[in-house]
Amino acid sequence: MITKLITMKKQQNKHTQKEVSQSMKSTKLKLNIEDKKFFSLQPTPTMMTDLYQLTMMQGYFLEGTHQRIAVFDVYYRIGTVMQYSVFAGLQQVVEYIENIGFDDNDIAYLRELDIFDERFLQALKDIKFDGDIYSVVEGEVVFPNTPLMIVKAPLWQAQLVETAILNILGHQCLVATRASRMVWVAGKQTIIEYGLRRSHGNSAGNYASRAACIAGCAATSNLYAGQMFGLPVKGTHAHAWIQSHDSEIDAFRAYAKIYPNQCLLLLDTYDTLRSGLPNAIRVFQELREQGCKPVGVRIDSGDFAYLSKQIRMALDNAGFEDAIILVSGDIDEYIIQQLNLQGAKIDAWGIGGKLVTGYPNPIFGLVYKLASIESDGKIQPKLKISNDIIKTSNPGFKNLYRIYDSNGKAFADLVALKHEKLNMPLILTHPTERYKSTTMTEYTARNLHTTIFEKGKLVYKIPTVAECNNHLRQELENFWDEYKRIVSPQVYKVNISDELYELKQRLIASSR
Amino acid sequence: MITKLITMKKQQNKHTQKEVSQSMKSTKLKLNIEDKKFFSLQPTPTMMTDLYQLTMMQGYFLEGTHQRIAVFDVYYRIGTVMQYSVFAGLQQVVEYIENIGFDDNDIAYLRELDIFDERFLQALKDIKFDGDIYSVVEGEVVFPNTPLMIVKAPLWQAQLVETAILNILGHQCLVATRASRMVWVAGKQTIIEYGLRRSHGNSAGNYASRAACIAGCAATSNLYAGQMFGLPVKGTHAHAWIQSHDSEIDAFRAYAKIYPNQCLLLLDTYDTLRSGLPNAIRVFQELREQGCKPVGVRIDSGDFAYLSKQIRMALDNAGFEDAIILVSGDIDEYIIQQLNLQGAKIDAWGIGGKLVTGYPNPIFGLVYKLASIESDGKIQPKLKISNDIIKTSNPGFKNLYRIYDSNGKAFADLVALKHEKLNMPLILTHPTERYKSTTMTEYTARNLHTTIFEKGKLVYKIPTVAECNNHLRQELENFWDEYKRIVSPQVYKVNISDELYELKQRLIASSR
Repeated sequence: MITKLITMKKQQNKHTQKEVSQSMKSTKLKLNIEDKKFFSLQPTPTMMTDLYQLTMMQGYFLEGTHQRIAVFDVYYRIGTVMQYSVFAGLQQVVEYIENIGFDDNDIAYLRELDIFDERFLQALKDIKFDGDIYSVVEGEVVFPNTPLMIVKAPLWQAQLVETAILNILGHQCLVATRASRMVWVAGKQTIIEYGLRRSHGNSAGNYASRAACIAGCAATSNLYAGQMFGLPVKGTHAHAWIQSHDSEIDAFRAYAKIYPNQCLLLLDTYDTLRSGLPNAIRVFQELREQGCKPVGVRIDSGDFAYLSKQIRMALDNAGFEDAIILVSGDIDEYIIQQLNLQGAKIDAWGIGGKLVTGYPNPIFGLVYKLASIESDGKIQPKLKISNDIIKTSNPGFKNLYRIYDSNGKAFADLVALKHEKLNMPLILTHPTERYKSTTMTEYTARNLHTTIFEKGKLVYKIPTVAECNNHLRQELENFWDEYKRIVSPQVYKVNISDELYELKQRLIASSR
Repeated sequence: MITKLITMKKQQNKHTQKEVSQSMKSTKLKLNIEDKKFFSLQPTPTMMTDLYQLTMMQGYFLEGTHQRIAVFDVYYRIGTVMQYSVFAGLQQVVEYIENIGFDDNDIAYLRELDIFDERFLQALKDIKFDGDIYSVVEGEVVFPNTPLMIVKAPLWQAQLVETAILNILGHQCLVATRASRMVWVAGKQTIIEYGLRRSHGNSAGNYASRAACIAGCAATSNLYAGQMFGLPVKGTHAHAWIQSHDSEIDAFRAYAKIYPNQCLLLLDTYDTLRSGLPNAIRVFQELREQGCKPVGVRIDSGDFAYLSKQIRMALDNAGFEDAIILVSGDIDEYIIQQLNLQGAKIDAWGIGGKLVTGYPNPIFGLVYKLASIESDGKIQPKLKISNDIIKTSNPGFKNLYRIYDSNGKAFADLVALKHEKLNMPLILTHPTERYKSTTMTEYTARNLHTTIFEKGKLVYKIPTVAECNNHLRQELENFWDEYKRIVSPQVYKVNISDELYELKQRLIASSR
């Protein structure tokens, strides 16, 4: 889709990023936010925020500065993996924002804390979000130090929503990013998300399934996520099914009798090659005699390279070339790659813990930093200084562009101030080492930001999970594989415009 | 409390474990499960389970074996840390079990999947949990390969609840265990849980706060968890407060004006020692002149050993000996220990990501294994064999005892069959290396299991978080510090009785 658009753009020789951005929006919308039955679990309650947001809000309120317009950027500094990330969680942010409000119980609780003024508590009763939110869409390929979401709102409202936004997006970006790596390594092999039991409580399980499917998992074991988000659900039986029958063959036969056309058997309860495999083949033969076609087998322990090759051979020899081999048990992208390099005969992976928790790095590391604030009726840029220049935030109200080269390949992301127009040719310069630059004489640019809320009104139609995945798949095709390598990938360029760089230097200097 | 009980027991020279177990139950109960307003977020929906639970349930149902009584054990094989774990999450399991049920929408969704028989779907409509659940209490110190929870119920019900139980308990045990280590290392220093923004979605944030406080965190930043569970909440201001004022001193003064008696100032927005600290001291002096007492300062970056010593000296020199130093930013138990070893002057820690996600090991690894099943009207023991003998499950319906030596110190945990009585003297034997044994001529034993549900009826009063923490603190005192060391701790003994060992060997032999 992107490639097509770029071609079109090139022919027109124009760089109207807005059009490209608009056309990226999904057109078929199954899920509308007003359709409350699609509310996946309870939206994050407004009270689920850090106390310090409320103490600061009261501070602004009592100073009379709470209605000043502030701009906050959501971004991450270093990925959990040294590679692209996948953006996810926007739908749940929207559900949260739409439901902002404190009820009488909340106000009574806050009053009991004995730190809030009654005027502030009364004002809180009527608070809702009436700012603007700009965001990249779910399924977007994203990089460090770029504004993934921008909240422009009255200061006290912008402060209130920080914690929930980081909580929601951080979790789903973590899972979607990890899942995307696994899906990429697995190639044509299918990945099914099995992580509910390993995820951190119920909403984590639900949204992990969602994020995993945005990133390309083919299905989930989680029935609730299937029901809520229209995801395909998969699952057969556990070891307990085998154990609760008198023998393995009895258990297999019982399963085949009930599910003659969905028969996928777990082989490793007693002994995979000596018991599970021959018993499964026997039952598959019985199914064949009844005119049914078995689905395949699952193994959950042992050496998957060795076992899968043995199983494939035996299944093929018995004439079950179409029966699949599904592998589960502590899988991640590194294990997938290692097993495939050894010629493992695996058709599908069931991945749980390492997918849904991000093991060994369960922290996505999103931050929410003040970029601008109204002062004397004008929005003034602000920055947070760090000893490490790369950690110093980018000031101002900004846009995020993706620059594609003449082949339609993603070349760099560019952070620029909102009012800036992109020139032809375009000079792309390293964010700190300014002598490193590239001049693009032919390019197309896409504004990655979409307007989600405008003066508190939702102006964005939430796409389905399938649509988000569709966007991701298409966009990943625009990136060279060198950026996707799971170990030591090429670092993708994230540049900042000259004007933004100069503003940043000016603010750093004036703060000294 | 335990020590006292043990003394009493010794005087009576009896070993009625049940009495000890009963008396461990909390007596002051603030939180009653029927009090629905204490429902923390939405209890885990019944549909939030793996599809394979439903396909197995239908299998049992169509075979007519679904009402057979089954016994499943919940346990973990290897801790996320090589040390004790802390049990937590029981309240949410109770809330889940109490609310089991499928509504018409659920049934309609399942029907659409086209794998379920109408008779089964009709039966599902009326399903509820009417089995027994035995569990260790929240705040219990627990070890690998011991049954933390036992579900004894009609097979299809026991199968249904597996996923949610593992999801709920795994998460809260992970956080409580990690928090307990941090609390232990911090000694008299206070720990506040700051993890909401880093936790995996909203329920993860809420229950992480709960689990952290069960383990001894003094407060949370999470207002919602404060409201739901009666936890102390803490929080002051962020860098944005400073940035949104014209200068740091203005921001500090504004904060001190609004919170003259809760004034804790964040020092590191511009430069901790050259700007933040002198400005804070100036504002503290102004507060003192007004007769107010400042609370202290927070630092969120830089070298905490060096900075805290400099800050302490400056505060003391200015006469603010009581002002505390709170440190936040990527803290964990190892960093606490390292900084304290270098004489850091830190009074309190704010800990987020590494506490609530268990970084770098976000997977607690609980499993749910069939231990017994009714056959010919009798409950028969079952086991799941593994190539690794230590991973082969313990069969049968079991008890879990903690054996205390004559000094009242925890000596070993003992897994035995339900009908077994403990002898005097008691021979404790290694689970696999049976030549390793110890004879106890003087001991007391505590049955760690409490009955939670009896024939589907809740017979347990949920204690408060404070009561759970009280139990944990008292029980940890019964363990030598050698078991609590955060690196390379002494391994605590987990033994199995002779009768259980023999049963296990018999079943292994008969399966060959």
